[in-house]
Amino acid sequence: MKIYRVNMTNQTVTVEDVPAEWKGLGGRALTSAIVGKEVEPTCHPLGKNNKLVIAPGLLSGTAAPNSGRLSVGAKSPLTGGIKESNAGGTAAQKLARLGIKALIIEGQPEGDKFYSIHVDKNGCRVQEENELVGKGNYEVVARLTEKFGSKIGVLTIGQAGETRMAAANISVKDPDGNLRSAGRGGLGAVMGAKKVKYITIDDAGAPGVAIADQEKFKEAARRLAKGLREHPVTGQGLPTYGTNVLVNIINEAGGLPTQNFRLGRYEHANKISGETMHDIIVSRNGKPTHGCHAGCVIRCSQIYNDKDGNYLTAGFEYETIWGFGAHCCIDDLDIIAQADRICDDIGIDSIETAVTMGVAMEGGVIPFGDGPGMLNLLKEIEKSTYLGRILGNGAAFTGKALGVTRVPVVKGQAMPAYDPRAVKGIGLTYATSPMGADHTAGYSVATNVLKVGGEVNPLGKEGNIELSRNLQIATAALDSAGLCLFVAFCILDNADAFQAIVDMINAQYGLNLTNDDITELGKSVLRTERAFNEAAGFTREHDRLPEFFREECPPHNTTWDFTGEEIDTLYNF
Amino acid sequence: MKIYRVNMTNQTVTVEDVPAEWKGLGGRALTSAIVGKEVEPTCHPLGKNNKLVIAPGLLSGTAAPNSGRLSVGAKSPLTGGIKESNAGGTAAQKLARLGIKALIIEGQPEGDKFYSIHVDKNGCRVQEENELVGKGNYEVVARLTEKFGSKIGVLTIGQAGETRMAAANISVKDPDGNLRSAGRGGLGAVMGAKKVKYITIDDAGAPGVAIADQEKFKEAARRLAKGLREHPVTGQGLPTYGTNVLVNIINEAGGLPTQNFRLGRYEHANKISGETMHDIIVSRNGKPTHGCHAGCVIRCSQIYNDKDGNYLTAGFEYETIWGFGAHCCIDDLDIIAQADRICDDIGIDSIETAVTMGVAMEGGVIPFGDGPGMLNLLKEIEKSTYLGRILGNGAAFTGKALGVTRVPVVKGQAMPAYDPRAVKGIGLTYATSPMGADHTAGYSVATNVLKVGGEVNPLGKEGNIELSRNLQIATAALDSAGLCLFVAFCILDNADAFQAIVDMINAQYGLNLTNDDITELGKSVLRTERAFNEAAGFTREHDRLPEFFREECPPHNTTWDFTGEEIDTLYNF
Repeated sequence: MKIYRVNMTNQTVTVEDVPAEWKGLGGRALTSAIVGKEVEPTCHPLGKNNKLVIAPGLLSGTAAPNSGRLSVGAKSPLTGGIKESNAGGTAAQKLARLGIKALIIEGQPEGDKFYSIHVDKNGCRVQEENELVGKGNYEVVARLTEKFGSKIGVLTIGQAGETRMAAANISVKDPDGNLRSAGRGGLGAVMGAKKVKYITIDDAGAPGVAIADQEKFKEAARRLAKGLREHPVTGQGLPTYGTNVLVNIINEAGGLPTQNFRLGRYEHANKISGETMHDIIVSRNGKPTHGCHAGCVIRCSQIYNDKDGNYLTAGFEYETIWGFGAHCCIDDLDIIAQADRICDDIGIDSIETAVTMGVAMEGGVIPFGDGPGMLNLLKEIEKSTYLGRILGNGAAFTGKALGVTRVPVVKGQAMPAYDPRAVKGIGLTYATSPMGADHTAGYSVATNVLKVGGEVNPLGKEGNIELSRNLQIATAALDSAGLCLFVAFCILDNADAFQAIVDMINAQYGLNLTNDDITELGKSVLRTERAFNEAAGFTREHDRLPEFFREECPPHNTTWDFTGEEIDTLYNF
Repeated sequence: MKIYRVNMTNQTVTVEDVPAEWKGLGGRALTSAIVGKEVEPTCHPLGKNNKLVIAPGLLSGTAAPNSGRLSVGAKSPLTGGIKESNAGGTAAQKLARLGIKALIIEGQPEGDKFYSIHVDKNGCRVQEENELVGKGNYEVVARLTEKFGSKIGVLTIGQAGETRMAAANISVKDPDGNLRSAGRGGLGAVMGAKKVKYITIDDAGAPGVAIADQEKFKEAARRLAKGLREHPVTGQGLPTYGTNVLVNIINEAGGLPTQNFRLGRYEHANKISGETMHDIIVSRNGKPTHGCHAGCVIRCSQIYNDKDGNYLTAGFEYETIWGFGAHCCIDDLDIIAQADRICDDIGIDSIETAVTMGVAMEGGVIPFGDGPGMLNLLKEIEKSTYLGRILGNGAAFTGKALGVTRVPVVKGQAMPAYDPRAVKGIGLTYATSPMGADHTAGYSVATNVLKVGGEVNPLGKEGNIELSRNLQIATAALDSAGLCLFVAFCILDNADAFQAIVDMINAQYGLNLTNDDITELGKSVLRTERAFNEAAGFTREHDRLPEFFREECPPHNTTWDFTGEEIDTLYNF
């Protein structure tokens, strides 16, 4: 496999052998290793010294179930620390089949021109792009599909990325032309700062991924697929209701942040729940279940149509629905779906943006519950008005712009859909992840609330530090394998499913890794990321939640009561 | 002396004895000690847990020359670190004469009501304020002068402070009703967050300041006054041309940052120089020299009238003129004076705001050189539009809002009027001061360019670390004495003038401090401030200049070439 390095200062491409130290890495392990080695931690994230690194996971491009995740890394314009954001869609599999270990985009052109990058079996080329500049992601994907056919892989930024807003994301085309997102941390702004509007990936005639031991690989892949199908979360809950199955569950648990983290239950939760959404989707001839990449056996995505039965959005996730919903006191799923659609189209993280809307409501820009007002605010972002630029830079920025003190962020990144006072394991992940507040970095909700992988009381302290630590390590490894995070539900309860992953990696690469080696890989990723952040100026004081979480939150009236000293033990490994 | 503590949560006042540990402190030493002890470093600067501490210097209220400086401290909304900002005007002297060692404003009322605080010989009281809310500082001072008479002392915030913008300052009335500013670091936003519109200080019938040995004090005061009158900078340059004498000097030295720190010389420098300004002031019957407080023997202030001979602004400083001038490529002193007037009136730091204007020009909001456009942008701040809220939060914030990478800030605070590549000693002060980029924290320009206190080559590295270190220590001591920073010019060249200060402190308090004790006081202040910042999450990585200073700057084509390791030795004391 090769590393493709695109220098945007002069629009040249070089092809490099993979250095020995990076050969055993993929996905997040590789993007973080490259960013850690090549990016100066104190550089300006939107300047010429930052690099955007795109890498498929270790198992991407193979028949391993749910292995189509793509990692994108850089110094984050949102947090100022290292960032890995990953997404489904088809790009990871195509890059892997083309033998591309990583695509590194560096430098910065002078002037205002935008470019596109095209990758195929003949290599990689950079071209000036004029037509699609200023267009939303839906149009970009449609036009590129017209031009290159429906199988083309696409990474693209919308208007938010072009205008370098810190909440901008990178969209990834799925097999049916829908959009998935490398959502968090503003990587779309880094791509915009590099002046790359989109990347097309054509894997026609690609050599494919070499597998050292095909039989062993297939057998292990079957075991993982079986495990995923048999687990209640990945085999039933997620395929039926999508991630939005969580609205009722988290509301019941008293951890559904409502009205900008004032309450832990939303009185209209049932109007935005997965069950309600399922019925709406079915009644409008949408698709209640859909996979974001080939080989997905969970299929938690869906197609949500509007009242007239026309496509409105896809990949409509719990965290987004919570954010534009309970957090903003909006109980109309159609409004929330429109908000999700706009975020996907202009290319902005729907979690960051939804939390930002609640902060804007807190600051009096519009009242809580004002759905049409919220859609108008999203249009301000699209138009890049000054208000739009405030909002498009995220929740922490909007809070500062408006003089608001109640701002649910860690390391500058907005907190997702679980109140840390009622689900303390996830609070620890928010506090300590090198990514900033990120539920996917160590999803303690699984054990705290869903009782997957055992039980740890979500309202107490006991066991939560170990829980978050172990999940952060395991997640770093999964993100490196290119596996969907939801595989974790299965492997937490099923040791053989975890063994199957190790077996697949060994079968593919002709290795003899043990489970401990995989754990060590996860630890090593986290150490690399922490070291980058430390060199960028982060300290233990950045591993803290905002002070307002010391106030009680109904219904449990618990507070965030971990001391700094306790939190600081989490990274003792 | 007493400490007055105003709890704004319930609008109550308590009077406390001064604890033993604070008895020997004043000014910056005291505000930083109180903030360091009582404010949680990770609190939200605009929240109820921050405190605004106001303290006269050790010598304030006495006949010591130039001892009328007031220190204001808090956690800064601009930098996120500790802040001491000091100002002239009459408040320090009046507080000292009333026997008030410090005024601590803490807590936060619920709701939108504003309040005023009145201090006189009978104590301190809080009252609801309605009439002056929303008014500019000029009107506030005029109305309070009408109500209380021309001798009333006033601290006030304008619209920027009321709306909690991070560049908002606190204005202090001078003897003639002009405005001085505790400018830097957004302390006006802290006062606004406490919902205090203004503080009036009436020292009629005050006991005055006790002096243990009157004769010794008077004799020492005379020696300092003589030293100040005889030094060329404090006796001639500053009284004649004000601080703006520096435009030609710094331009000649190649360190006048032009067009957002692209060049070190401004082709139209002569149009905005102190010499030109002097002639304009004289021709319009303004006052070329004026003292900002009683007992000033330097009198670097002035009254600048408009073309029709009507008052336009006062306290019109070099850094402001540079910022709205060379930095923004505007060569019209009348436009610059109007900008200064607006900043004073709406209560916003003219240095931060001027630098912000250049960053806004860099981001394409208006072109470089557009004077009328710049005045319109200042009106946006006054009106608190969304653009105004971006600008009012300072240069770093504006840079982020606009996706600009060329942003001259350290620790979130804008860099003043000296290019660190051409005046390296001041670059070290910018980098390492706990205050963020601040020329007043250790004015190495004195020795680098003005050849006061010896000579250290401004373009090389040698001797600059020691220079900045020693000046930062000395300045922390001067700020604690309540002495004007310009006293430093004199004492750098005149050992007896420094001795006179030590003698005055000893005579006033009946002490036997040595010069070393004063140096130790300065070191101790800096240690307290650094400790606060460290606990707030600052590291050595925050003691760095933005990466663009590694590019060469004409005319000397020098770069900022101090390594991190070199910079980190500065605080080895």
